Amino acid sequence: MKPTRTLRRVETVDDMGRLGEIYRAAAKIICEKGFDATSMNDIAEAVGITKAGVYHHIPAKKDLLFRIMTFGLDELDEQVIIPARAIADSETRLRSIVHNHVRLITGHSTPQGFNPVTIVVDEVSGLAPAHRRKIDERKRGYVDLIRETLKQMKDEGRLRDVDPTVAAFSLLGMILWLSRWYRPEGRLSSEHVADEISKIALGGLLRPEARLRGR
Amino acid sequence: MKPTRTLRRVETVDDMGRLGEIYRAAAKIICEKGFDATSMNDIAEAVGITKAGVYHHIPAKKDLLFRIMTFGLDELDEQVIIPARAIADSETRLRSIVHNHVRLITGHSTPQGFNPVTIVVDEVSGLAPAHRRKIDERKRGYVDLIRETLKQMKDEGRLRDVDPTVAAFSLLGMILWLSRWYRPEGRLSSEHVADEISKIALGGLLRPEARLRGR
Repeated sequence: MKPTRTLRRVETVDDMGRLGEIYRAAAKIICEKGFDATSMNDIAEAVGITKAGVYHHIPAKKDLLFRIMTFGLDELDEQVIIPARAIADSETRLRSIVHNHVRLITGHSTPQGFNPVTIVVDEVSGLAPAHRRKIDERKRGYVDLIRETLKQMKDEGRLRDVDPTVAAFSLLGMILWLSRWYRPEGRLSSEHVADEISKIALGGLLRPEARLRGR
Repeated sequence: MKPTRTLRRVETVDDMGRLGEIYRAAAKIICEKGFDATSMNDIAEAVGITKAGVYHHIPAKKDLLFRIMTFGLDELDEQVIIPARAIADSETRLRSIVHNHVRLITGHSTPQGFNPVTIVVDEVSGLAPAHRRKIDERKRGYVDLIRETLKQMKDEGRLRDVDPTVAAFSLLGMILWLSRWYRPEGRLSSEHVADEISKIALGGLLRPEARLRGR
């Protein structure tokens, strides 16, 4: 019998590291073969553990997509959203969001040029409705954080005359598209790409006068 | 017996209109249900023709993904790439690319907020290797057009100090992400979004001095 475990169980730090490894491997296989064609055996082989070991961490394949997405959004929370919420200055907050999100994606890209977790997080059509609502809500929270930051910058006269909604999604598109093209073994380091994307994004959003004055 | 037809057959203008309708409907269903769960019957029902009618246009389901992608890239050729190649001035060419590509995506978005053809074009993992090579080559051609335009602008001193490769993919990400969030029934018209994205993208790429001087 496989042990039954709930999603709410408190994981130890070791468990979390191993779980991250399993989720990343599973996401990579799902991106390559599609969800239906991905077996628990494939995942076990990729991580180098037994199939029972995989079932120990993930009791049911049907929850796999939701678990990978939750893992990806937890990482986003820890590395991007929570640090950003602690920053009062709007422009500094925006720079922190761009920099940390770019680092999160490029830091886990594969040599083939994709960050599988980022791509799977976008495939919400495979989720049960209740799970989909939860994931959509968390994503909406992130879009709102970016949009509110841009609105604050607009109120402060620091934003170019652009629509904050279009600006928020353009910024997100620029960052999320990295998971499709960035290759960690190429000539561009993760840090360098973060700098370049910040330059392009902030250049496109900040008022030229404010920028010329500020630096 | 279904009539066998080749991909190279010359289509009449009427055929092309009907084919476009079939490909858009098929892409929408594939986005919602996944490729494996999509049947020729679903497509026939969505377009309001018989299953035999669908087979008349698409003899084999296994070619469907490749045909939708080819259709999407043909539209990109006609509406974005060919007009751009006819423009000698680099900055005018870049503005034309951004504007026409945004219009292509937003003009065919669904009220649910996605342009299914754009999303399917990105799902190359479902293709046979020979088909995948063809699609990848056409996409590479488009990235190269954007990158060469940016390099020309850099040589002319019109580009901010940014890496043309990062800039090209950032621009593409901004544009392609539209197919995930833009809703034609919302408050933003296709023309307005094209203007806003141009403003953000060009603002992020043009040298401030050049921009302040030029406009």
